Amino acid sequence: MTAQAVVGPCDFAVVRGQTDLILSAFLEGKDHTAAAHQLPAEVTEILRNFLFAGGKRLRPVLCVTGWHAASGHGTPKPVLQVAAALEMFHTFALIHDDIMDHSHTRRGHPTVHRALATRHRDGRTATAASQLGTGAAILIGDLALAWSDELLHTAGLTPTQSTAVLPLIDAMRTEVMYGQYLDLTTTGHPTGNLERAIRIVRYKTAKYTIERPLHIGAALAGADHDLLNHLSDFALPVGEAFQLRDDLLGLYGNPEQTGKSVLDDLRDGKHTALIALVLRDGARTRVNQLRPFLGCRSLTEDQAAAARRIIDSTGARASVEDMIRSGRQQAERVLDTAPFAPVALTSLRHIVRTTTGV
Amino acid sequence: MTAQAVVGPCDFAVVRGQTDLILSAFLEGKDHTAAAHQLPAEVTEILRNFLFAGGKRLRPVLCVTGWHAASGHGTPKPVLQVAAALEMFHTFALIHDDIMDHSHTRRGHPTVHRALATRHRDGRTATAASQLGTGAAILIGDLALAWSDELLHTAGLTPTQSTAVLPLIDAMRTEVMYGQYLDLTTTGHPTGNLERAIRIVRYKTAKYTIERPLHIGAALAGADHDLLNHLSDFALPVGEAFQLRDDLLGLYGNPEQTGKSVLDDLRDGKHTALIALVLRDGARTRVNQLRPFLGCRSLTEDQAAAARRIIDSTGARASVEDMIRSGRQQAERVLDTAPFAPVALTSLRHIVRTTTGV
Repeated sequence: MTAQAVVGPCDFAVVRGQTDLILSAFLEGKDHTAAAHQLPAEVTEILRNFLFAGGKRLRPVLCVTGWHAASGHGTPKPVLQVAAALEMFHTFALIHDDIMDHSHTRRGHPTVHRALATRHRDGRTATAASQLGTGAAILIGDLALAWSDELLHTAGLTPTQSTAVLPLIDAMRTEVMYGQYLDLTTTGHPTGNLERAIRIVRYKTAKYTIERPLHIGAALAGADHDLLNHLSDFALPVGEAFQLRDDLLGLYGNPEQTGKSVLDDLRDGKHTALIALVLRDGARTRVNQLRPFLGCRSLTEDQAAAARRIIDSTGARASVEDMIRSGRQQAERVLDTAPFAPVALTSLRHIVRTTTGV
Repeated sequence: MTAQAVVGPCDFAVVRGQTDLILSAFLEGKDHTAAAHQLPAEVTEILRNFLFAGGKRLRPVLCVTGWHAASGHGTPKPVLQVAAALEMFHTFALIHDDIMDHSHTRRGHPTVHRALATRHRDGRTATAASQLGTGAAILIGDLALAWSDELLHTAGLTPTQSTAVLPLIDAMRTEVMYGQYLDLTTTGHPTGNLERAIRIVRYKTAKYTIERPLHIGAALAGADHDLLNHLSDFALPVGEAFQLRDDLLGLYGNPEQTGKSVLDDLRDGKHTALIALVLRDGARTRVNQLRPFLGCRSLTEDQAAAARRIIDSTGARASVEDMIRSGRQQAERVLDTAPFAPVALTSLRHIVRTTTGV
């Protein structure tokens, strides 16, 4: 019972700290290899700056929680290293997403492609430096993906653990990339297709951020198919509610608290569930008023405020709040009956609150 | 002896055919999954178009040759699937390289990012379509990388084979990405640093294209450290000679035969060994005449011809031919004494000729 007693939300900080130690030691190893072979030191420097500038380490925390949910004891090094591999994969995903979204800042600093453009500005035109920054950031993202694999391969998993976990890792990667593909190809062309907006949410966030990290941790502890299904029943509604909350914060949030602009989603013309609801159910006059603001690169604060008033007036915001509430309740009901180890329940309840609350 | 008798250069076509069958079946599986979950069908369509538009399947052939060099018998399915995984990885590398190099065509067709820009042109400005094409191509490359892993994970390797091969796969990926990073950050700024040019050749080509595929195949057959070292002694000089030959063809080749423009390397200002030799050893007046042509985006055919005359006059071209000859001879000497299974020697000799010959 002692091992269980120390595991709970209060230990998320410990999981984060241990994950970061593994990532830090891994990059230090790569520093030495690069130095020994006269390869550029900036690759690991850029990755280190990015990783340790922030991030909630949500996927590592969920991986360890999945391990506990399936009655895994303590938090052994191999489990933590798989958790670290998930964070390294996420680093890849963010670096590439920021290129695709033309994002300027992340974690309070210039995005990787912008930082690299600045670093290599000398002796180049602004265009050439920007193109080089993008190319080098694609490569550093590629390395983060390859290195997330190396962290997995060197985690010290048993053959049984590898057999259980690798298909889940493969599924997670394919899902998030398809989700991002859907997101990318619909951005700028939002429609009233709510089902498509929810599919993006499911693949890009619910499965990637919540379901698969839980599955992976649970599979390491030998979870059977039934337990993985219960974790999905919990994870998918939480994950959808999490993304819907994020969509609302992207329009109504306080940028100082969220670190997110409340203009970007409108300017990009994101095909969110919120916008799909307006376009599908809003009165024609309202929709016609909103249309010019969606995907308008030069949108002003005043225009964004007008867009928000139109959206509110259609009831779409209230509908999304209902969807979030419903997702939370659904997930909480799963926790009342699912056969998860009790020690994991506190963590899972905490995760519901922090990911979907205002 | 029968199994050995059928293995030789003449069977490269069989290896290519079998690799392609595995890749084709794998993508078909992904088609079905995507269709079942209403995910975009164009992802696998684009990958299939790219894979089957051409390519020499050099890495699969070398992987199978490595297997034979270490006394592997026949060509079992798991070995072919690892070979297919290497080709899927190469697909990833080419798609991303073409983005970084702003290449317009590959294998006689528009590059993936350009094909995607065209496909999504409707309802978008040219700039928006081009940006979407780049983003979607980054993602399809990412999927190819993730799927090369899935091919490995599902190849049916024994735990001993996995333990032997995964570190080599990890090394190969890191090496080629660092090689590309060096190449990318020096392109446009060629110098007389020959050692740096050779380092790019070694990481981007010699290790990635020749050494590691041989290692991976040999490790599947249980090769020991000593045999891997002998393979390196063979592979690195061949691989360097291969890239040096490619550099010469990039300036002096017949575009109809090579499929390569003889202007691009000059226009890009590639930091090749050839150019490094001119800049390091050429007379000042010659170097000053050449400089304006290096990295000149608007370089004409006449200017390229002038650049070629200058390079010839410095003796750099002859020096590179000497380096190629020396690399070939070094590799052939290794074949005279290395403990490779005899059946592999014919293949390896054939590979030397076809990769480094004119």
